[in-house]
Parts: sequence; structure tokens; C-alpha cells
Amino acid sequence: MANQLYKQVLFFFFFFLSVSLLQSKSFNLKKPCKHFVLYVHDIAYDGDNKANATSATILNPMGLGDFDFGQLVLVDNPLTMDQNYLSEPVARAQGFFFYNGMTNYNSWITWTLVFNSTQHKGTMTIMGANPIMEPTRVLSIVGGTGDFLMTRGIVTLKTKLVQGNKYFCLEMNIKLYECY
Amino acid sequence: MANQLYKQVLFFFFFFLSVSLLQSKSFNLKKPCKHFVLYVHDIAYDGDNKANATSATILNPMGLGDFDFGQLVLVDNPLTMDQNYLSEPVARAQGFFFYNGMTNYNSWITWTLVFNSTQHKGTMTIMGANPIMEPTRVLSIVGGTGDFLMTRGIVTLKTKLVQGNKYFCLEMNIKLYECY
Amino acid sequence: MANQLYKQVLFFFFFFLSVSLLQSKSFNLKKPCKHFVLYVHDIAYDGDNKANATSATILNPMGLGDFDFGQLVLVDNPLTMDQNYLSEPVARAQGFFFYNGMTNYNSWITWTLVFNSTQHKGTMTIMGANPIMEPTRVLSIVGGTGDFLMTRGIVTLKTKLVQGNKYFCLEMNIKLYECY
Repeated sequence: MANQLYKQVLFFFFFFLSVSLLQSKSFNLKKPCKHFVLYVHDIAYDGDNKANATSATILNPMGLGDFDFGQLVLVDNPLTMDQNYLSEPVARAQGFFFYNGMTNYNSWITWTLVFNSTQHKGTMTIMGANPIMEPTRVLSIVGGTGDFLMTRGIVTLKTKLVQGNKYFCLEMNIKLYECY
Repeated sequence: MANQLYKQVLFFFFFFLSVSLLQSKSFNLKKPCKHFVLYVHDIAYDGDNKANATSATILNPMGLGDFDFGQLVLVDNPLTMDQNYLSEPVARAQGFFFYNGMTNYNSWITWTLVFNSTQHKGTMTIMGANPIMEPTRVLSIVGGTGDFLMTRGIVTLKTKLVQGNKYFCLEMNIKLYECY
Repeated sequence: MANQLYKQVLFFFFFFLSVSLLQSKSFNLKKPCKHFVLYVHDIAYDGDNKANATSATILNPMGLGDFDFGQLVLVDNPLTMDQNYLSEPVARAQGFFFYNGMTNYNSWITWTLVFNSTQHKGTMTIMGANPIMEPTRVLSIVGGTGDFLMTRGIVTLKTKLVQGNKYFCLEMNIKLYECY
């Protein structure tokens, strides 16, 4: 009798355990549920490189300070798995950024990463302040769709290469803490 | 005795079950907690229709490519329950979008849906890339207030009607996975 | 025997209880996990106050209506613990806002609050419609980093002082419902 009860109790436990795990949102901020690194390449339109430009300035700096304050840039930048900008893009970063530092270089970014490969389909949107002169900057990932449905997390940006106003490459270290 | 124990165990189970359901965030990505369809109507300001325009271009296309790259538009567009733009608005979409495609039509959107009716008060904010030429596009819902406090989800956009540069209507299929 | 079983069952219960509490995201929308009030100060650049301006207009109103429709402003505004704009800033609000009301004053905001003090390091990003003429307006907090990693919540804005086009101060009542 007690033995039978014991089995019944165990059954309830495991039943409830599975229901609970299915329904509740569980995550561990020490260990992202997805973690990967991408590189974003920005080739600025200079009036003469329409064929391979990936971004373009739609508002010029307003001449307030020496840090391009007021410059507004739209982007459709390729993301690659390594730092070589000739590598096959796995996604594109679409959105904008602007320079908003009066006394130092500072920018502010909103990009939607659009994945459309055999491996991943979907988007995630990142946003936040990007204080360029810091060695690393952390921005928020606020939502996602498709393979990244409802995701959230952070992305750490690191500048890998800057060539004047022509080109830059950033490392994007992406940590997702909500995955479904 | 064993029977009494059994009751006690059951009591604990159900007590814990209710505590757990109260405290933990539970959701099911197969079944949204709210699901509804709205239609957004955009009547572009053309210099002569101030009385009924609901959006206006604040930066013109920069002349890079044939897809209005660089055009920046502010919106205060009515949302209706059906596709008739004369129907009573249930909310407004406030925010902006811009065209950011160099080689095809592409746009990027951030709109806050502002509900202020007897039925719903509150907001939800959607954002993401909107590749216009795709039959459907999925954007993220990243937060909300009032009746939609702390909500998250996705919205699927489908173009219903385009009349040159004057008017467009999009179907917005809204799926919320976090409701409180 | 039954007693031993009882202990075993209790052990499982508490074991599972702790696992469950560790893993699942629990929050209470009646009681924020963090709640504090800050004041944001905006000193508009007027062509002559470069030394202390904290915001600047990068696109002027387009002349559609009487409510500055189309004005686009970048901000790097100090946040203080009290309403005195000379108090030590505890953070900065970086981002932009624009006026998008054709028939009344309305604005739309995206600001990343950047904390960099001994007390707090990290960011949170707020966004949403800000219908200025309402006594209070509620916007969404959609993500965070550092001390505010993965946070979400709402902020209630209240205008405290407006001095023409030169200066404004808003109370920001911040309620976070997800803290880690």
C-alpha cells in the first residue's frame, strides 16, 4: 500500500516537473543559451562606390564639436563568421546609427540582424549607446523572430579595424539568455 | 495513516503548484496569450492635404539607387479593426520608418501602438526590418504599458493596398506571448 | 515505513522547490524589483551655448502645423537624483527624440540611460510615445546591461519645468519588474 502510494507520488512529481519545465521560463545569466561571434563590416558610401557601399550618411555632422555630432547613417551591413569582409555573409545588420558626442566620440545604434541562410532564418534587434572609444561596449538585444523568436540578451562590440571614414569592422560577441 | 499522508502530499503538491504558477512566467510559443489583427493606414503628406495626412517625410531620398534610400518618414497612423480606413480607429501607430535598401525596396520601422479607447488603454512598441517586397514580414514587439504592461511578441505585416506614394494599408497580425 | 516515505517525499519537494525557484523567472507586477526616481535635464543648443548644451536639433521642424512636427533632437542629457540640475549626475540619457504631432504637441523618445558611477554601472533603454500634454506618460524599458542586465519595466515621465525652447526637466519614475 505504502509502496503503491510512493509510486503514485513519484509519478505526480515527474509529471509536475515536466509540466513546470515546459511552461516556465528558465534561464541562467551565468551561461547563455546561445553564444556566438560575428563580424560586421561597414563600407561607407563616398559618392563614388555605389556598387559596394553598405552604408550611407543621410544627415551630415552639424559642425558642433569635433566628433561628427549629428551625423546620421543608414546601414545594410554584411555579417561574417570571421574578420575577412570577403567571407560569405551569414546575415545583414539593417538599421541606423548616429554620432551624438559633443566632447568625445560617441554613437548610438539600432540594428536588426537579419539572418537568411540555410542555417538560420530570423531576426534579432539590438540597440543602445556605443561609446566608441571604450575597448568594449555592451548593447541590449531586445527581441527576435524566426529562429530567434522572443530572444533577449546582450552583444559586446569591439572595434577590429577602422580605415578613416571609409570602412570599419566590429566584432559582435552575442550572448542570448532567452532561447525557445 | 498512509491515507492521511497521501492527503498531505496532495495538499503540498497543489499548494506548490499554485505558488509556482503565480510566481513563474509561463508561456507557450505555440499559442499566443493574445492574438488579434489590426490594419494600419498611412496617408502621406503631399504638401496639400494637411487636413487628413497621417505621415510626413522629414528627409527626402538621397538619390542613391531607385528605392528611396534615405527617405525618413514620421507617422501618426490610425489603426482599425477592418481594412476600411474610414472605420473608427482603435489605436494609433506613432514613430518613424525609413527606406534603407540600395538594391531593392526595404524599410525599417519603429512604431509605438497607442491604444486609448474604452476597450484598451496602453501601448506596445514594435520594431524591426520590413523587407517590403516579401509577402509577409515579421517584426518584434519589445515592450508595453497599461493593458499591455510588459508584453512581448511578434507582428506579421502584410501589404493590403498601395496607392503610389499617397496611401498604403498594412495588415498587422499581432501575437503576444507574454501577457500579465 | 510511512514516516520514512514522508521524509523522502518532503526532501523531494524542497529539492524541487529550490531548483524551480533558481531556474524560473518570477516576478510580481504589483511590486517592482527595483523602483527609483531620477530627473533628466535637457539644455538645448541655441548656437551660442556649446559649453553647457546637452542636446541639439539636427533637423528643424518642417513647418507642418504649430507643434514642431519633424524636429529631430539628439540628446546626451544628465540624470540627477533631485530636481536641481547642478546636482552630481548619476547617469546620462543618450539617444534622440522627435516631435510627431500634427494637431497637438507629441513626441517620441528612445533613450539609453548610461550609468557609470561607483554605485551603478550599466545601461537600460527606454522607448515609446511621449504625449507631452498629458500630466504623466508611460514608456517601456526594453532591455539593459551591466547592473541592469536583461532588465525590463516601465518609466513614468512627468514634466517638472519648461523654459521656452531652452531647457526642460522631466521626472522619471522607473519601475523594473525583471531584475537579475
